[in-house]
Amino acid sequence: KQQPPVRKKQGTSPGTLIYTGKEKPERIIVTAIHYNEHVFQETQILKNQIKRHSATDNTITWINVEGLTDISIIEKTGSEFNLHNLLLEDVLNVYQIPKLDDYHESGILFITLNEFKLINNTCDLEKDQVSLIIGNNFVITFQEKAGDVFEPVRIRLRSAKGIIRKRNVDYLAYALMDALVDSYYIILDRYNEELFAIEDAIISKPKSNYLQPIHNLSKNLITFRRSVAPLKDVINKLIKEESYIIQETTKIYLRDITDHIEQLTTTIDTDREFLTNLINTNLSNTNNRMNEIIKVLTVISSIFIPLTFIVGVYGMNFENLPELKSENGYFILWGIMILIVIVQLIIFKKKKWL
Amino acid sequence: KQQPPVRKKQGTSPGTLIYTGKEKPERIIVTAIHYNEHVFQETQILKNQIKRHSATDNTITWINVEGLTDISIIEKTGSEFNLHNLLLEDVLNVYQIPKLDDYHESGILFITLNEFKLINNTCDLEKDQVSLIIGNNFVITFQEKAGDVFEPVRIRLRSAKGIIRKRNVDYLAYALMDALVDSYYIILDRYNEELFAIEDAIISKPKSNYLQPIHNLSKNLITFRRSVAPLKDVINKLIKEESYIIQETTKIYLRDITDHIEQLTTTIDTDREFLTNLINTNLSNTNNRMNEIIKVLTVISSIFIPLTFIVGVYGMNFENLPELKSENGYFILWGIMILIVIVQLIIFKKKKWL
Amino acid sequence: KQQPPVRKKQGTSPGTLIYTGKEKPERIIVTAIHYNEHVFQETQILKNQIKRHSATDNTITWINVEGLTDISIIEKTGSEFNLHNLLLEDVLNVYQIPKLDDYHESGILFITLNEFKLINNTCDLEKDQVSLIIGNNFVITFQEKAGDVFEPVRIRLRSAKGIIRKRNVDYLAYALMDALVDSYYIILDRYNEELFAIEDAIISKPKSNYLQPIHNLSKNLITFRRSVAPLKDVINKLIKEESYIIQETTKIYLRDITDHIEQLTTTIDTDREFLTNLINTNLSNTNNRMNEIIKVLTVISSIFIPLTFIVGVYGMNFENLPELKSENGYFILWGIMILIVIVQLIIFKKKKWL
Amino acid sequence: KQQPPVRKKQGTSPGTLIYTGKEKPERIIVTAIHYNEHVFQETQILKNQIKRHSATDNTITWINVEGLTDISIIEKTGSEFNLHNLLLEDVLNVYQIPKLDDYHESGILFITLNEFKLINNTCDLEKDQVSLIIGNNFVITFQEKAGDVFEPVRIRLRSAKGIIRKRNVDYLAYALMDALVDSYYIILDRYNEELFAIEDAIISKPKSNYLQPIHNLSKNLITFRRSVAPLKDVINKLIKEESYIIQETTKIYLRDITDHIEQLTTTIDTDREFLTNLINTNLSNTNNRMNEIIKVLTVISSIFIPLTFIVGVYGMNFENLPELKSENGYFILWGIMILIVIVQLIIFKKKKWL
Amino acid sequence: KQQPPVRKKQGTSPGTLIYTGKEKPERIIVTAIHYNEHVFQETQILKNQIKRHSATDNTITWINVEGLTDISIIEKTGSEFNLHNLLLEDVLNVYQIPKLDDYHESGILFITLNEFKLINNTCDLEKDQVSLIIGNNFVITFQEKAGDVFEPVRIRLRSAKGIIRKRNVDYLAYALMDALVDSYYIILDRYNEELFAIEDAIISKPKSNYLQPIHNLSKNLITFRRSVAPLKDVINKLIKEESYIIQETTKIYLRDITDHIEQLTTTIDTDREFLTNLINTNLSNTNNRMNEIIKVLTVISSIFIPLTFIVGVYGMNFENLPELKSENGYFILWGIMILIVIVQLIIFKKKKWL
Repeated sequence: KQQPPVRKKQGTSPGTLIYTGKEKPERIIVTAIHYNEHVFQETQILKNQIKRHSATDNTITWINVEGLTDISIIEKTGSEFNLHNLLLEDVLNVYQIPKLDDYHESGILFITLNEFKLINNTCDLEKDQVSLIIGNNFVITFQEKAGDVFEPVRIRLRSAKGIIRKRNVDYLAYALMDALVDSYYIILDRYNEELFAIEDAIISKPKSNYLQPIHNLSKNLITFRRSVAPLKDVINKLIKEESYIIQETTKIYLRDITDHIEQLTTTIDTDREFLTNLINTNLSNTNNRMNEIIKVLTVISSIFIPLTFIVGVYGMNFENLPELKSENGYFILWGIMILIVIVQLIIFKKKKWL
Repeated sequence: KQQPPVRKKQGTSPGTLIYTGKEKPERIIVTAIHYNEHVFQETQILKNQIKRHSATDNTITWINVEGLTDISIIEKTGSEFNLHNLLLEDVLNVYQIPKLDDYHESGILFITLNEFKLINNTCDLEKDQVSLIIGNNFVITFQEKAGDVFEPVRIRLRSAKGIIRKRNVDYLAYALMDALVDSYYIILDRYNEELFAIEDAIISKPKSNYLQPIHNLSKNLITFRRSVAPLKDVINKLIKEESYIIQETTKIYLRDITDHIEQLTTTIDTDREFLTNLINTNLSNTNNRMNEIIKVLTVISSIFIPLTFIVGVYGMNFENLPELKSENGYFILWGIMILIVIVQLIIFKKKKWL
Repeated sequence: KQQPPVRKKQGTSPGTLIYTGKEKPERIIVTAIHYNEHVFQETQILKNQIKRHSATDNTITWINVEGLTDISIIEKTGSEFNLHNLLLEDVLNVYQIPKLDDYHESGILFITLNEFKLINNTCDLEKDQVSLIIGNNFVITFQEKAGDVFEPVRIRLRSAKGIIRKRNVDYLAYALMDALVDSYYIILDRYNEELFAIEDAIISKPKSNYLQPIHNLSKNLITFRRSVAPLKDVINKLIKEESYIIQETTKIYLRDITDHIEQLTTTIDTDREFLTNLINTNLSNTNNRMNEIIKVLTVISSIFIPLTFIVGVYGMNFENLPELKSENGYFILWGIMILIVIVQLIIFKKKKWL
Repeated sequence: KQQPPVRKKQGTSPGTLIYTGKEKPERIIVTAIHYNEHVFQETQILKNQIKRHSATDNTITWINVEGLTDISIIEKTGSEFNLHNLLLEDVLNVYQIPKLDDYHESGILFITLNEFKLINNTCDLEKDQVSLIIGNNFVITFQEKAGDVFEPVRIRLRSAKGIIRKRNVDYLAYALMDALVDSYYIILDRYNEELFAIEDAIISKPKSNYLQPIHNLSKNLITFRRSVAPLKDVINKLIKEESYIIQETTKIYLRDITDHIEQLTTTIDTDREFLTNLINTNLSNTNNRMNEIIKVLTVISSIFIPLTFIVGVYGMNFENLPELKSENGYFILWGIMILIVIVQLIIFKKKKWL
Repeated sequence: KQQPPVRKKQGTSPGTLIYTGKEKPERIIVTAIHYNEHVFQETQILKNQIKRHSATDNTITWINVEGLTDISIIEKTGSEFNLHNLLLEDVLNVYQIPKLDDYHESGILFITLNEFKLINNTCDLEKDQVSLIIGNNFVITFQEKAGDVFEPVRIRLRSAKGIIRKRNVDYLAYALMDALVDSYYIILDRYNEELFAIEDAIISKPKSNYLQPIHNLSKNLITFRRSVAPLKDVINKLIKEESYIIQETTKIYLRDITDHIEQLTTTIDTDREFLTNLINTNLSNTNNRMNEIIKVLTVISSIFIPLTFIVGVYGMNFENLPELKSENGYFILWGIMILIVIVQLIIFKKKKWL
């Protein structure tokens, strides 16, 4: 239930690598893909098989590591690809907001992103970190947990569909980030569905209280937005970055991603505004229910309180109370009382209180 | 009732063409128009008559296909005009948000748009997909359902009104999109009417509950906005696109469309803000009704509860209760009670509770 | 009561001119002003006196037509000044939003604007169309109804005040549009007054319900904003337009108008936000009134219900009920009951319910 | 109580000067300061001592006129400094929004600003006009009422503090406007204090109704904002103005003022949003009070209504009603009734209604 | 409880230095760090040890003064580093909003910032001033109170981690400001936690009133935002400043800080919007509680008021009231009354009022 911090910078980061997440050790899957326009090779490899291809090989290497609990894999990758220790620390520190670091000296771009899953098909989010390391002829991705968010990219690589195999590492990086952002739409679709479901329930079953699901969705939308929105800055930085890795032709595609993020955040904002309306609608329903209750109270009181007064009158013990001696007094009184009730019922019927 | 997804990208699109909509097969109408400044020929054609004119012919061809249930027509069009399979898939996948694809290699621009109809003159929207394929000397349009949204363009072509027959395919494409956006204004006019109708009802007949129509309109406005807003990006991309198809002179017109969309979304936003006010007004009315009910309860209780107490006093069985023996006690009591009622009625009259 | 459409484009405009407004034929006033720095001539003319001065004359002609019910005047003007039929149709189609059309071929700019009047000094708007036709040495204005919105310009022309007589047609057009926008401020001042009047009433006389005037003002503000806001785009287009009519020196003045419109719309938005607060305040007042009513109910019930119970006790017919036989029982009971009432009154006084 | 108009342009301004404010004639103070880097002379002068120094004198003249009721002073100043009659009219027409007029021909810039005072330390604003006339070697300021808003500038001039005496008239004009804008912060501080005071009261004394002070503050904030916001446009125009008076070096300072105004308007907007929340909080308090009242009603009714029924049972006159004959019936009944009360009190205690 | 003024400019600042804060004299800590790429020396020094290194020394000096109560230290620093008296006054005047002053003549940049601490781990803010004086080879920082906000920078200097020791004073200044802005995130994290805690409480324990904590948090967020937002302008000015101190390479880093501030203010705005929703939710809860209370009242009244009427009927003293003479009348009546109660309970059960 602990809300992860908005942003956490380790003032005093010791030189040792520590995984900050809460997962228990599990089997880690490392997949290596080597490809160029003509060649494609995909293998699931062991820790000690991680190695860098020379640039003259003319292929692009994409290594995907799923799971962060085995530090030695991260260390091995770091030493093989000559990655800065600070970068490796950031891979393991899983409570970060999306960011871009440019390691000029080693010619490496490092991007931290988030992957989202819906827990048990509720609206609650599981937020995992995805790290993207872009070198001159390789891309390394670290996923905090096993997931198939990159599967569409793999399929396009295998089938050589589109231009992905003809382009450089920057296009691969774009394709991976695009696949990630695509997965955000699934979350948002789920939230939109939930939103309309709550609204339908409020309108069709106005008797219940919907504050709980409204606020639950609202909280999830805020958390989601806070993770998605900074991504736009990351991509914009990438576009402005004077790195030789990102080519002009790819920047057009990256701009496409920022458009998607803009669209996502706008949709989230519309949704949240809509939730505010639902809170007011729920309040309206509460007051409508109260109306109904008070109507019953008023109708019953209005009918019986005057009658009780009348019978009280003839319960008095005055020695001289003429009506009491009348032969048919009691029956006449009943007649009067029934008349009063009928008149009142007609009035309430007219007022639509019945 | 299933809300169509905000955006759906087929990660693994197999090579076969499948129509994703829910319509049953129906007669499909294919219309071909060939024109230039001097020539105009309009014919309703059969599937196997679909063919591409050579560019040297110096005419522009506009083929309009209404209905998507016959895959063979789409295939025939694809092979005749040399369209990419991916493009044909997108024509058939009718749950897309507006987008622009540039098929550089074949010199074709592909635009996906939405056409809206109001179901049975209610505010509920039927959203159909319109695909626009722009080549060097042809435009092909696919409408998911038969519709006359392009009729104004046809009329201008027939009558050679304005400059449409003197201009190139890009102007035809502009005219078609403009006709589509014009049709959006009719939807919005209907929504504005509905909005003011609800407001008038809330003000003039405050007794009822208007949450249902308010939320219905609100939901429709959101759905409408989500389909209209992305169109602006599509047109902007078209303006920025370095395609030789779209000429500078036409871009000025395209900017006009983005202005219209901007105006549409602003109007929608104002409407939605207005609906929020109506929710609060409806709540005010609910509370006013409750006020009225409680007034009745209070007036009746205030009058009869004290009287019931008084008659209760003289219903007591004390052996020594002097008033009971008074000859006129009963009649004096009636006088007092009537006086109490009159005083209370005056007070309530003053408080305007009666 | 029919809300005019947001925007209506006649897809199939036949070649005949038809006035779309609802006014009955009335006397139409045509005024012609010819001027340059040294000359000024102002005459009220007849239909057949409408004629174009040659450009070598070196004067500027401003023809103002008040009233659109006589089609022949529009036709005569059209033929004399060589105006496109489409333009004349737009002059007569009075349900348009502000727009700018550039008739390149004839070197004419056509601007559609709106004039507003308050009906019977209420807040309800009467919206009339004003058309502005700018040629190389003439300006023609068509007003749907007679009005004096252009009077300040006439005065400046007559008295040669300011630089208006030294400048070209574009400055005249600017002066006319500026006079029109100035007239909008009078409407807005009236609305601001109304707004503060409603607010004062809500605060000082909280007993009434103010939903009706609030929503009436709100609706008028929305209608007003929808007509005013698009004007900014029109002026901006005019500034960007590469027409030789609009000179650079005049564009600075035009920018001034867009500033005014920006200011108008911002003020309207602030006003509407303020109205939302008033709806909530009105709701607060409703609930305060309910509070008062329920207090009365509670006080009376709290006092008399227990007393009624007490007298009920001694109305019981138990054979062995000792207090009934006490000589002073009845009077002691009255003492107790008066004590109970006094204690309750003190408590309610403390709670400020009395 | 008359709300001054948002903007008032005199279409037909006759040539005579008339003061439009409501102040009675009072002693008018005219102060003249002549200075350059080495010289400083400050004198309070009479009407006929107003005169222009020749530009060769190499000093800057600042004449400050406090009070506008003596037209002859304005006329004298006008003739001495060769000011346009239109400008003098604007000095006297005190219901204007901030504006900048550039009198190119005479090389004079004319700025209209507003000075604010809080009336009797309430939040109500007194709005006075300040006119700023900037010539090549002089600045003339007209204040509608005596005030010390320019005192800080005078002090800096006297003590030659900062660079003010080394710079030109444009810097003096900047310093004067900056002093004016600084005085706005005092108003805003007062409003912020009031805002937090109202909020504290609402939270700590929730029993009262705070709609009156909330709306009073809200109205003042709107009025204040409407006068402050247009100032930004004025300064921006001044920056863009191609007047030789305003030098590039001073424009940086002017940009500083626009930043301050931006900050002021943002703070006002935040405050107004906060007031909206207070209206809702006030409503919450109203409903809380109602809750308390209804609890009392419910507790008393729930206790006594059943008891009254019970005693009513034994007040019945059935000939065969066995309990009445029981020796201890009456006392047993009291026991039962006390038990019922105790049980109810426990239940209400648990529900926290007591 | 005194709200510090939004902005306070001392019109008449006398030449004497006065500390405007409310702290009592305390031990002041002065720390001096001298470093370059190869050298690092950190010492805690006495007042008279403060001295300026010559620029030829090729080291950078950072002097940090914690505590402002000893004026003589400020004076000594001023004379040693040749600081303007106005600057020293600003160091001591601790109620300022963030600002940047450029002392061109002495080549010194002066920045005023704020440091925040949470008082006793509540959400209440303690706002202290931090002054940053940047010279050609030195940085002097004054903290109003002892604090460790700069500790991360010291650690990086000591350990020569990153590039900080290779860069110039401008980078040191950036690092210090960055450390300060980082500390703002901790405040904001605390506020976000508090926000979600209030929300959880409102949803899970809807019986209480949460206006107090909501408004407390709201006030703190506003105060925080007002201090944080102007910082963006300060940094932007620093970026635009044509000072030779701030190098182009450092400006990229400064832009990073403005991004962080933008992110902070956006998060604050989202939080405040969320608080508005919580106020409405709290209101919903209040009304739900009222619903519950009124249900009890209605149920009890509906059951017993009719019964009381019935027993009242048989308490009447009519001489001819046949049922009274029936042998089993009393018992039959009980049967009828119990039946009525059972029917009512079933109805209320169905309505879910029980």
